[in-house]
Amino acid sequence: MLNKLNYSFFISIVLAYVTNLFADNALIFQSDFGLKDGAVSAMKGVAYGVDHQLKMFDLTHDIPAFNIWEAAYRLDQTAPYWPPGTVFVSVVDPGVGTSRKSVVLKTKNGQYFIAPDNGTLGLVADKFGIEAVREINESINRLPGSNDSYTFHGRDVYAYTGARLASGVINFTEVGPELAKQVLRIPYQVAKVTNGELSGNLPILDPQYGNAWSNIPKVMLQQIKVKMGDILCVSISNGDLLKYQGKARYVHSFGAVAPGMPLIYVNSLMNVAIALNMADFSAKYQIKSGPEWAIRLRKCK
Amino acid sequence: MLNKLNYSFFISIVLAYVTNLFADNALIFQSDFGLKDGAVSAMKGVAYGVDHQLKMFDLTHDIPAFNIWEAAYRLDQTAPYWPPGTVFVSVVDPGVGTSRKSVVLKTKNGQYFIAPDNGTLGLVADKFGIEAVREINESINRLPGSNDSYTFHGRDVYAYTGARLASGVINFTEVGPELAKQVLRIPYQVAKVTNGELSGNLPILDPQYGNAWSNIPKVMLQQIKVKMGDILCVSISNGDLLKYQGKARYVHSFGAVAPGMPLIYVNSLMNVAIALNMADFSAKYQIKSGPEWAIRLRKCK
Amino acid sequence: MLNKLNYSFFISIVLAYVTNLFADNALIFQSDFGLKDGAVSAMKGVAYGVDHQLKMFDLTHDIPAFNIWEAAYRLDQTAPYWPPGTVFVSVVDPGVGTSRKSVVLKTKNGQYFIAPDNGTLGLVADKFGIEAVREINESINRLPGSNDSYTFHGRDVYAYTGARLASGVINFTEVGPELAKQVLRIPYQVAKVTNGELSGNLPILDPQYGNAWSNIPKVMLQQIKVKMGDILCVSISNGDLLKYQGKARYVHSFGAVAPGMPLIYVNSLMNVAIALNMADFSAKYQIKSGPEWAIRLRKCK
Repeated sequence: MLNKLNYSFFISIVLAYVTNLFADNALIFQSDFGLKDGAVSAMKGVAYGVDHQLKMFDLTHDIPAFNIWEAAYRLDQTAPYWPPGTVFVSVVDPGVGTSRKSVVLKTKNGQYFIAPDNGTLGLVADKFGIEAVREINESINRLPGSNDSYTFHGRDVYAYTGARLASGVINFTEVGPELAKQVLRIPYQVAKVTNGELSGNLPILDPQYGNAWSNIPKVMLQQIKVKMGDILCVSISNGDLLKYQGKARYVHSFGAVAPGMPLIYVNSLMNVAIALNMADFSAKYQIKSGPEWAIRLRKCK
Repeated sequence: MLNKLNYSFFISIVLAYVTNLFADNALIFQSDFGLKDGAVSAMKGVAYGVDHQLKMFDLTHDIPAFNIWEAAYRLDQTAPYWPPGTVFVSVVDPGVGTSRKSVVLKTKNGQYFIAPDNGTLGLVADKFGIEAVREINESINRLPGSNDSYTFHGRDVYAYTGARLASGVINFTEVGPELAKQVLRIPYQVAKVTNGELSGNLPILDPQYGNAWSNIPKVMLQQIKVKMGDILCVSISNGDLLKYQGKARYVHSFGAVAPGMPLIYVNSLMNVAIALNMADFSAKYQIKSGPEWAIRLRKCK
Repeated sequence: MLNKLNYSFFISIVLAYVTNLFADNALIFQSDFGLKDGAVSAMKGVAYGVDHQLKMFDLTHDIPAFNIWEAAYRLDQTAPYWPPGTVFVSVVDPGVGTSRKSVVLKTKNGQYFIAPDNGTLGLVADKFGIEAVREINESINRLPGSNDSYTFHGRDVYAYTGARLASGVINFTEVGPELAKQVLRIPYQVAKVTNGELSGNLPILDPQYGNAWSNIPKVMLQQIKVKMGDILCVSISNGDLLKYQGKARYVHSFGAVAPGMPLIYVNSLMNVAIALNMADFSAKYQIKSGPEWAIRLRKCK
């Protein structure tokens, strides 16, 4: 028969277990560190020291060095597939040690994004909306003993704070003081319809296959009455320079055109993309991506 | 003293815990996506949404683009080291969006392999035997809200189904209708002994070191009475083209010959392999691998 | 009301849970295998087979092939950020199958390092001190059924032993017989102060950005009275060859000098490093790293 002491003991165990169940928010790391040295592992070691049960995952550590735009895009591409409560730590930080702010953005879908406020957070702020922005108070939220380190905020501040937030050691208000509801943004061509023509940006390439992805949503194709199988006239430019002009069929998927032929398709983010079946569109036509790349397309006459 | 209510509460907690203990099958991902973008992380986010306790691991995401043969080989190489119940998701899928079937293969050793039926599953089917093959019923086993996405079955169907199978949310029969006990296979030279000569295939290189691995098992060396230290005469061909002819000593391990010298050894899969000590056999002699590459070897006269 | 049977059942569940809480030491893998094939996944499969609850992480698998020095450095760089009890498995093993010993080093900070005794363990032994060294008794600590495999100790012995040690299946004394308190070391220039000049080694580059890291601790800058903002005269040599001579400002962080300009800073390990802001010092001046690279610096006159 159980006595009061045993009962309390059970309850404490049960509470420990239940607490653990409710505090298992995933912690996702992104950086431009690569995986050749120990930097990513040091970040995970710091996070593991905060909570041994923490679920840690990588987004990517192969963001090109200093490429804030791509860091922003990868968060935007991936975050919708993670649940509310997920904490993202993104460290692409050419200004480390200068006066750029270290912040935690809480978006309206209940996710947290920890990064330098250097443009990294612009696209997820646009997509999900800003619930609140807080500046990390480094006098509290910094790996104990790391005060003399100026060049690895990813480990000493971001990973440490991310782990404490994901595991429930601190809550969002304990991150630091609330700032205005805004983050730094990098300008780019928004998607639009004009006289039967679609304009937009090429934010990113699919680097493994060389497909060029636009920010033009599938629904805009319907607005200019494009049907599956139609031939589209496409032009791509970098600033004022025309870089590609050609025709491509709008199809469901790659196998619908012959190998080597161009196609327009709706990518996995439900946006318009252009590719060659079984070949590399980007390499063949020297197409790259970024805020200064634009695409236009219409039904051929 | 515990009353009935507390008792039920405890039991439910205990059952939750015990259930979790028995449903912790690992989920292993393989693809040709690379790790530079958010595709792999999106797959893991979907799986994490199914079960926060799921144990996820990567096989590799560096399968060369569209290389179904290598995808098949990597599963074959790795699966024996994972326990029964493990669920593998392999996405090398040049035919995504066409009529190739999406299947789950259950092998006779109790593992599950989720992939397009495009040749990816041939080698593990040969190695372990086919227990059953089921086609994924995408009307049930698809990420809710992803019905308009045609090009990322890896995330919307395979990762989602893999997570539900590994965590016990569905069982194997709930995957979809059972098919005939067969999967698509890619033909290659099987290992054989003929008049004191061994023939076989070079399925793969050890890409880090440039060693060439054959499918000839160690036991066949004994059948032609090769002893440790013997000199073997080796030829390698690609279809009808002879690409290498030379002599190599059969040794236990690399350190047994001088740096730069060739050696024949039994690799970590217990098959015959050829290499240069501290150098790159593949690069030096332009040897590659795949179903069309063959090797022959015998004791030199 | 709970009877004795239920009580015992609860206790066993509680003990299982509590035991699990206390045996969750992380297992960290490092190798020169790369991530293109199934080798790393096979190691993790073996470890998962030992304990499904084991927390596994990667340090890096991109150590350049056979580069024992870099393997030693990565352990030294990363281990301080993981807690006591962490088990590291490092497999850079050009001598696999020869007579080099397979050992477990326990350092005085309570961490375990499993590796061939080929120089891999020298730097962590220097940093933390040697508590004890044990040779792995492979008659006990080897994946069952792997006795005929000579070339993949990483999987058959190291991963298997690491998993059993991290999860508490065996304790340190069960690894095998104790050896002398020493491990193999690779000689290099230790950091020193001579007549107002600092000398040291360039153990490693920051491979993502091309910064050159020295082993000279920040405190030595103070010993030669260098202040923030001072200009330092630097020379770098490889053996007897002078490879670089130039001036660089000592600053807090990269943003403090113009893009393309050189800087001296204290890196994330609290050592002196040299870099170009937003550019690649190593590529521009053909600077590499290793035991034979030396750096000297002093205040310019």
